[in-house]
Amino acid sequence: MNQSRIDRILKELEKSGVSQMLIVDPMSIYYLTGVMNHPFERFYALLLRKDKQPVFFLNRLFNIPQEVGAEKVWHSDTDPVMDIVASYIDHTSPLGVDKDLKARFLLPLMEKKAATAFCNISLTVDTVRGIKDDEEQEKMRAASRINDLAMAELKKLVHAGVTEQEIADQLLEIYLSLGADGFSFGPLVAFGANAADPHHGPDDTVLKEGDVVLFDVGCMKDGYCSDMTRSFYYKTVTDEHRVVYETVKAANEAAIAKVKPGVPLKELDLAARDLITNAGYGPYFNHRLGHFIGLSEHEYGDVSSVNETKAVPGMIFSIEPGIYLAGDTGVRIEDLVLVTEDGCEVLNHYSKKLEILE
Amino acid sequence: MNQSRIDRILKELEKSGVSQMLIVDPMSIYYLTGVMNHPFERFYALLLRKDKQPVFFLNRLFNIPQEVGAEKVWHSDTDPVMDIVASYIDHTSPLGVDKDLKARFLLPLMEKKAATAFCNISLTVDTVRGIKDDEEQEKMRAASRINDLAMAELKKLVHAGVTEQEIADQLLEIYLSLGADGFSFGPLVAFGANAADPHHGPDDTVLKEGDVVLFDVGCMKDGYCSDMTRSFYYKTVTDEHRVVYETVKAANEAAIAKVKPGVPLKELDLAARDLITNAGYGPYFNHRLGHFIGLSEHEYGDVSSVNETKAVPGMIFSIEPGIYLAGDTGVRIEDLVLVTEDGCEVLNHYSKKLEILE
Repeated sequence: MNQSRIDRILKELEKSGVSQMLIVDPMSIYYLTGVMNHPFERFYALLLRKDKQPVFFLNRLFNIPQEVGAEKVWHSDTDPVMDIVASYIDHTSPLGVDKDLKARFLLPLMEKKAATAFCNISLTVDTVRGIKDDEEQEKMRAASRINDLAMAELKKLVHAGVTEQEIADQLLEIYLSLGADGFSFGPLVAFGANAADPHHGPDDTVLKEGDVVLFDVGCMKDGYCSDMTRSFYYKTVTDEHRVVYETVKAANEAAIAKVKPGVPLKELDLAARDLITNAGYGPYFNHRLGHFIGLSEHEYGDVSSVNETKAVPGMIFSIEPGIYLAGDTGVRIEDLVLVTEDGCEVLNHYSKKLEILE
Repeated sequence: MNQSRIDRILKELEKSGVSQMLIVDPMSIYYLTGVMNHPFERFYALLLRKDKQPVFFLNRLFNIPQEVGAEKVWHSDTDPVMDIVASYIDHTSPLGVDKDLKARFLLPLMEKKAATAFCNISLTVDTVRGIKDDEEQEKMRAASRINDLAMAELKKLVHAGVTEQEIADQLLEIYLSLGADGFSFGPLVAFGANAADPHHGPDDTVLKEGDVVLFDVGCMKDGYCSDMTRSFYYKTVTDEHRVVYETVKAANEAAIAKVKPGVPLKELDLAARDLITNAGYGPYFNHRLGHFIGLSEHEYGDVSSVNETKAVPGMIFSIEPGIYLAGDTGVRIEDLVLVTEDGCEVLNHYSKKLEILE
């Protein structure tokens, strides 16, 4: 158990008047216990209780022999698991639940009246997880360092006749050879007009002269994620595409320049969005500026036009403006930033200068 | 829209007295609409309604231009999405929900009193998905055919000094070269005593003489999953390990021999378990016999000692008995089987004869 993290969460819980909480996100459980486990469809949860030892609900199939400072309660596939869980919950007070708790577990607890009320208070855990401690910051730097190196390798794979899929298929080996543990998400590789879809996955599209070449990729290292996007051009670039690129780059830099403690996150989105809108491309930047990241590639919290949360030292999120022109092209430039005491540290160092690959 | 699948689900819904259902499992949505989409944390759902067109709730970031025979209702990251969803639900009748619907979406619908009751009726969808139609059966055969070929390639990678991780790292390329689209799950490779943990993931353990070499691997092909386990020995095998192996093999074969329409699934588990128990290893077979599989690697439905569901033609599930001796060894032998009109078709053809690798 990481007692300082548990204490931070219990303090947040107290503020919301809840004295017990059921956590099911395996990443949150790892964050608190150091135990990494993929439960698939089986029940796996940590019950935090004020002034009592936490309870760790485990299926006998999970291999978790180590002491974790919580009472371990084991069940088999054939046990009435939600009866067991209900017996540990204080029925006379409300239960805070994880936002990810599924209906198949939540509805039975409600039917059993296991608590007086059920409320989603994931925000308490997410707020704590959103502010990375020193150990986490160091791991995030290491994952992004590998991502910078991988981008340089990816670029070398660009040549006449290559397909998106052929490049994507080589990335895992690149990551592993650089010391990463695997992908943090399936890599996005998009050529030309395919890049107009922000979520385009690699397919058999063949590279052609004048295409934008967009890589949105990330790896895992020691449990933590990296995530970076760079957009290149192949052989030539038109004047309009150059304007699109420089607009996105300026938007990325404008937002980064504004990051410091106390700034509402929506102002970062606005800084990038205003710049893109003033260049005439407002409607073509059709997503939020960024997302939080850490143990998961997408963590709670975003950098969007409606998020009034203020930046706090230790937060790590992406800054990823884009312009998407259907049937033509798309450009996105993404970095991860760590909020520091007086500004931010950009975790990615790969150049953002417009580059034409030969 | 696959109307025959929708009709089968609506018929099941009618039996449970529910006239509207919110489906959120992306695989169930793919099954019904042909649309494959990974929503990450964003809301993505299909609302089925008796006598009305389905409603498809989509985030503007999803790239789903095609007509799907449902009313598309788009939202942005900054829209009050659960208000929008609630406005399409009949507030005067109960709502069936997907077992995977998360608390962050379910609790707001409850607070808004979007329906008179909320019940998990995933079983309706899962029951229909559990019985594969001809098109699905063909795709499942193709995925398992690749898995058979991949097992032969994996075996060739076993040599003095190799680590579990080194073998695991080569599997993706093997699958891709055989025409698969990727993994259906992260491969399990376990040497020697590591195999005593049924879920042991590959690490830097080095192969040594006398080790069992366990591969539990699967690929995706055209959206469908394969999953097979084989256990080999390296250079030598002790008499006791030989007994363990033959017991597991006989248990696998005994269960498969009993598969036919009308047999309660628990009897399959029992057939394998009795055999292992009679050989004195009962306590060391610590999991259910199998799980359903299809679009997802673990689908609803299991082959366990308490499942009284009867086998029906078209069901596909795993038969995977094992014996796990802590600190010593572990053996599991797993095949996928398709229930046919008069028995079953085993989808895996890789030999189960005890094999000693040199």
